[in-house]
Order: sequence, then C-alpha cells, then structure tokens
Amino acid sequence: MTTALYFGPGACSMAPHIVLNEIGVDYEPRKTNLAEKAQLTPEYLAMNPKGRVPVLLADGFVLTEVPAILTYLGQRYPQANLLPAGGEPLARCLEWLAYCSSTVHPSYAHLRRPERYSDDQAAYPKMQEKGEASFIDCIGFIDRKLEGKQFAAGDVYSVADAYLLVFFGWANGLKKFDMAAAYPHYTAWAKRVLARPAVQKVIALEGTQARYTL
Amino acid sequence: MTTALYFGPGACSMAPHIVLNEIGVDYEPRKTNLAEKAQLTPEYLAMNPKGRVPVLLADGFVLTEVPAILTYLGQRYPQANLLPAGGEPLARCLEWLAYCSSTVHPSYAHLRRPERYSDDQAAYPKMQEKGEASFIDCIGFIDRKLEGKQFAAGDVYSVADAYLLVFFGWANGLKKFDMAAAYPHYTAWAKRVLARPAVQKVIALEGTQARYTL
Repeated sequence: MTTALYFGPGACSMAPHIVLNEIGVDYEPRKTNLAEKAQLTPEYLAMNPKGRVPVLLADGFVLTEVPAILTYLGQRYPQANLLPAGGEPLARCLEWLAYCSSTVHPSYAHLRRPERYSDDQAAYPKMQEKGEASFIDCIGFIDRKLEGKQFAAGDVYSVADAYLLVFFGWANGLKKFDMAAAYPHYTAWAKRVLARPAVQKVIALEGTQARYTL
Repeated sequence: MTTALYFGPGACSMAPHIVLNEIGVDYEPRKTNLAEKAQLTPEYLAMNPKGRVPVLLADGFVLTEVPAILTYLGQRYPQANLLPAGGEPLARCLEWLAYCSSTVHPSYAHLRRPERYSDDQAAYPKMQEKGEASFIDCIGFIDRKLEGKQFAAGDVYSVADAYLLVFFGWANGLKKFDMAAAYPHYTAWAKRVLARPAVQKVIALEGTQARYTL
C-alpha cells in the first residue's frame, strides 16, 4: 500500500509532512484544498469522518491526529532519531505534542473558525479576540520555555520541533509582531529548525515561504 | 524524589491516576481542589504555570498534559503492558489520546468553562449549547468506534481506555441519557473497564462513584 499524507498547505499537517521528509519515507503528498472544503467531501469523510487534515495512510491503515502521527512515525523509524528513547527528553517531547494540539491549535481555531464554537454570529468578534489573546499567550509561553534550549525536547531535534514550527508560522502570519524582538527564543530556535533541508523542502512544496521568512 | 500526582476528583487527571494504580507505582495522591482554585495558587503555578491538573512528579521532573503522562508511563513501565509496542495498536492508542485531549475535552470545556473562550457573558449560553452538542457528537463517535472492540486500541487494555473512561463519566454525569440505550458499545466497553480493580480503587479514592454507576 502506498504511503500518503493528506495535507493543507500551512495547516498543522505541515508537522507530519516535515517528519516524513526528515525520515526519507517514500510518500505521496495529497494536497487537500481546505478553502474549497475538500476535507468534507463524501470520499474524504469515508476515509476520515473527522473531516480534518492530516491523514496518514501507512502500513495498511488510516491514521489521524497530529500527535499520534508524529509519535507513531518517530517510533516506527527509530533510525531517524526523531523521538527520544525515554526519560525527560521523551517526556518533554510528548508534552509539547499534547500542548500544541490541546491548547495552542484550539486557541487559534477560535480566531479562524469561531463557527465551530457557537451558532451565534454576533458572538464571534469577542470569541476571536479572546482566541487571539490566548494564542498569543501560548506563543509567549513557548518562547519562555525555549530559552536556553537548542530544541524543544532538549539538545536533540525531535518531532516536537516540527509541530512547534507550525505555530511560529501562524504567529508570524498574524503580522502583529516583529517575531525576533517579541519572541527572541522562539525565533532563535526557528532559525535552527528552518536551516534543515527537510523543512525547507516542505515549505517550498506547500508554498508557505511568506510566513517562514524572517 | 517522591512520585506524586496532582489530581482533581473526576477531572481528566483520573486517567493517569488509574494508570499509576494499574502499574502499581508507589505514589502520593495530591488532591487539588479545583472548585477553590487550588490550581491557581502561587505555589501551584510555580510548579505548573498552566494552572491545570494533572501534574505528575516522577523521575526527578514535573510532567503535564494527560496524553504525555499516559504515554510516558506506558513507555516507562513496559512490564505493565499498557502501551502497545508498535503497529496499528500503538497508532490507535495514540490517536485516542490525541483525540480526547484535542477534541473531546475542549468541547466539554465550552460547556463548563465558557469564560476561557470569551469575555462576553451574554455569549455563554449559545457557546455552552454548541459545546454540549459537540461533546455529545464525540460520545457518539467514540461509541461507533468501539463497536466490536474489546478495548480502544484493539484486543488489549491500554492507557487509552483509562482516558476514555473519564468522558464516559462526564457524559453519564450530564444525566441526559440512558447510556446503555444511547451508547451501547461505549457502555459495554465501560463495563469491562470498570471491572478492573485499579479502576475501582481510583473511583473510590476520588469519590466519583455516582457517575460510574450503571
């Protein structure tokens, strides 16, 4: 069975996209046009009833949820050294994955997709305001945590770094901050991550250079 | 260093609480009174700036985020056989952990804690209505996925089952459904999980028998 990744350019699916390229898995990138709701067609929903990206097809089954795909790929390809083997580095890596999906991403979703959270359109501006404030709080939290660290889980690059890069791009894309001035640790870290060939390859493939230019 | 778990009775911290008891780790349960905002005291925030439960103190460091704690404990104590070693069972286990924390828990939070998502109190009833509807959609999704399965990841009990039990209790606690009639697969699964001594021990310790009585 072909290995394939369903992704939306610049969406959170960028994290597994980077990891597939870091490992060097032979995969088929299947671009999914979220603006045209390609993730809500009957064919897509038959594969993933959640109606979201990413979806990884690999090893004969369908896998959803970014932290699950990242941890699975890290464990499946130990030679790539993208998932710490144990101890505090593993704990930190897993903690970042969970924080990104349970807290950072949902805060941004309140800004971009308030219709998920209320049917009352009059309530959207205040929800979006709070969502953006929560998202910016998350960016500040990430910045403080990355102070003095080479990578998210410690000294070694891991799947958590691929995930954290998504939100760096979303924050930069708000065009509200000079990222280097407002978030110096997150920015210094981003430069290290952006120097990786697999990361640049995915940015070019997804066409998201604008938000990753510092 | 003492191993300790900060938990709120019936909160999502119940999942790592169960897992510590399944493994048989010698730990100190540190009950945290969420109604009195004990998770927001300066002492607590110095340990966990996120101001949430659970926190696991173990192996000399502080760990937050339910999926991270569960995966870490599963990997740390392989003899307990609570984290599948690889392949589709591992993928499914990780997928459930991520779905619970990114989707199920936040939907319920819109019902219980709308102040996290808007400063406009007038918007809360509609957000709560949508949050409850989303949560109920999740319960239906879980029910359909558990059809014909012994446990969440397949044939073998795993950390994902401990996490899914939390939401079964929350759904039952809404007192809107006859769970067995509305969600027969989730209920049949819950009966298997509730039969486990470690699960019963934690329910007694946390004092949440009411919502786990079928």
